[in-house]
Amino acid sequence: MIRIAVCAPSTPILPEDAARVTALAAAEFPGVELVVHPQSYAVEGHFAGSDAQRRDALVECANDPSFDAVWFARGGYGAGRIAEDALRLFDRNADRKTWLGYSDAGYLLGALYRQRIGRPVHAPMLACSRRDRGDEAVRRVLRYLSGDMSGLEPSLDHRPTVAFNLMTLAMLCGTPLMPGLAGHVVMVEEVSEHLYAVDRLFFHVTAHLGGVAGLLLGRISDVPENDRPFGQTEEEIARYWCDRHAIPYLGRADIGHDAANRIVPFGVAPGAQPQ
Amino acid sequence: MIRIAVCAPSTPILPEDAARVTALAAAEFPGVELVVHPQSYAVEGHFAGSDAQRRDALVECANDPSFDAVWFARGGYGAGRIAEDALRLFDRNADRKTWLGYSDAGYLLGALYRQRIGRPVHAPMLACSRRDRGDEAVRRVLRYLSGDMSGLEPSLDHRPTVAFNLMTLAMLCGTPLMPGLAGHVVMVEEVSEHLYAVDRLFFHVTAHLGGVAGLLLGRISDVPENDRPFGQTEEEIARYWCDRHAIPYLGRADIGHDAANRIVPFGVAPGAQPQ
Repeated sequence: MIRIAVCAPSTPILPEDAARVTALAAAEFPGVELVVHPQSYAVEGHFAGSDAQRRDALVECANDPSFDAVWFARGGYGAGRIAEDALRLFDRNADRKTWLGYSDAGYLLGALYRQRIGRPVHAPMLACSRRDRGDEAVRRVLRYLSGDMSGLEPSLDHRPTVAFNLMTLAMLCGTPLMPGLAGHVVMVEEVSEHLYAVDRLFFHVTAHLGGVAGLLLGRISDVPENDRPFGQTEEEIARYWCDRHAIPYLGRADIGHDAANRIVPFGVAPGAQPQ
Repeated sequence: MIRIAVCAPSTPILPEDAARVTALAAAEFPGVELVVHPQSYAVEGHFAGSDAQRRDALVECANDPSFDAVWFARGGYGAGRIAEDALRLFDRNADRKTWLGYSDAGYLLGALYRQRIGRPVHAPMLACSRRDRGDEAVRRVLRYLSGDMSGLEPSLDHRPTVAFNLMTLAMLCGTPLMPGLAGHVVMVEEVSEHLYAVDRLFFHVTAHLGGVAGLLLGRISDVPENDRPFGQTEEEIARYWCDRHAIPYLGRADIGHDAANRIVPFGVAPGAQPQ
């Protein structure tokens, strides 16, 4: 039996989100048990409870030896406010766990990877079940945790890889949460940002990615209409900034803020194509 | 006679903007001559001409010995794309000049300050004349260049000071354009960002501001409505992140994306209150 704890370091889910995903897991994944921490429904302003509530629930899940994985419920914003304090309170039970999420959860995945705690994994979250065909995103995660590697991002190879939301990676750069990424393939994706903001984030991020093996561009989705066209495509932007910093641009990655978002275990993926 | 060159390293102005401000200068500031580079009206996608056009106009203004100051026409986005290449082409005539602008022009002000080229100054831009009471913002700049210090930000004292748009400063951090700010008072302002985004930027910026003398919070204006309240005020956000990084929070600064935006010469301001 694989036991998965769900908590919400950023923004809350609703009990019906949890009920729907728990029912799907019970019906289709008899080897999986999902335990949703009640903090996942807490609300305080923007967040799923106060910083202390979110931190304490995360630490509780991390240090409980009966869980094999911690699955972040939802993104939004907030994980970066608690990551440093929470990790300081983790004990050795945290090392045994797989940690899954993306978008705002990238603050935690990055910090866990930096501190070599367990196995951080870019993956859909529980709240992704709300999306069109979101059940398939949920199944992808539960299959992965059950040992089925079919949901891995297809370009993964022998090189260590990470995946981040572009804004999250930009905010991580130079902070105590940022992992060293020398030799890594870095995948980035973005949602709901103007192309000028994507360009601005690339200006920043590529200045911090010296020594990476290359960059793969995930989906840049839901770009808002601006008062005038930016004049370059998302791929031209990525190529331009990679070129300025001598970072190999490696093409597109199958990740993004959508139900098709594929799985990227940080480091060298078990089951990835050999060299 | 003070000769001021105007160019647009980010986004374009309209000829009528230039005509209005040039007329005001001619009528009220007989000791000032304003020369608007035609590149200021160029349009290519988001920008006031291509990167090469914007860079070349900036270099032309910088290296022309007949100008005492270079006044950036307008912000938006784009100065960061050309700053490094442009400064590499500056000659010693650039050292004699005062450089004025804010918002996206902060990429240039920061890089000039880092390289100790001339006198970078946070100040309203030509396009600010479009704002309600924008003529007063223009007069503040022309008075300052004429030796009248009445437009200085009132909290300036003997300590070296800089002022930045919060997003611009966040994007500068850790890049080749970022000046060392140890011992400096840092003023920040923001516009049109959600409070969660302001919090996120403070997470990033304060992690990079170790050793500064303190932070002053300018105006955080035009905050968009979110689907739920953030739960903290802009000042609570600033205090929280300053506190986490042992940065003295020094209160409010009289800067922002509005016509009241005051003048902040980078470094120790001439005419600032003595110790």
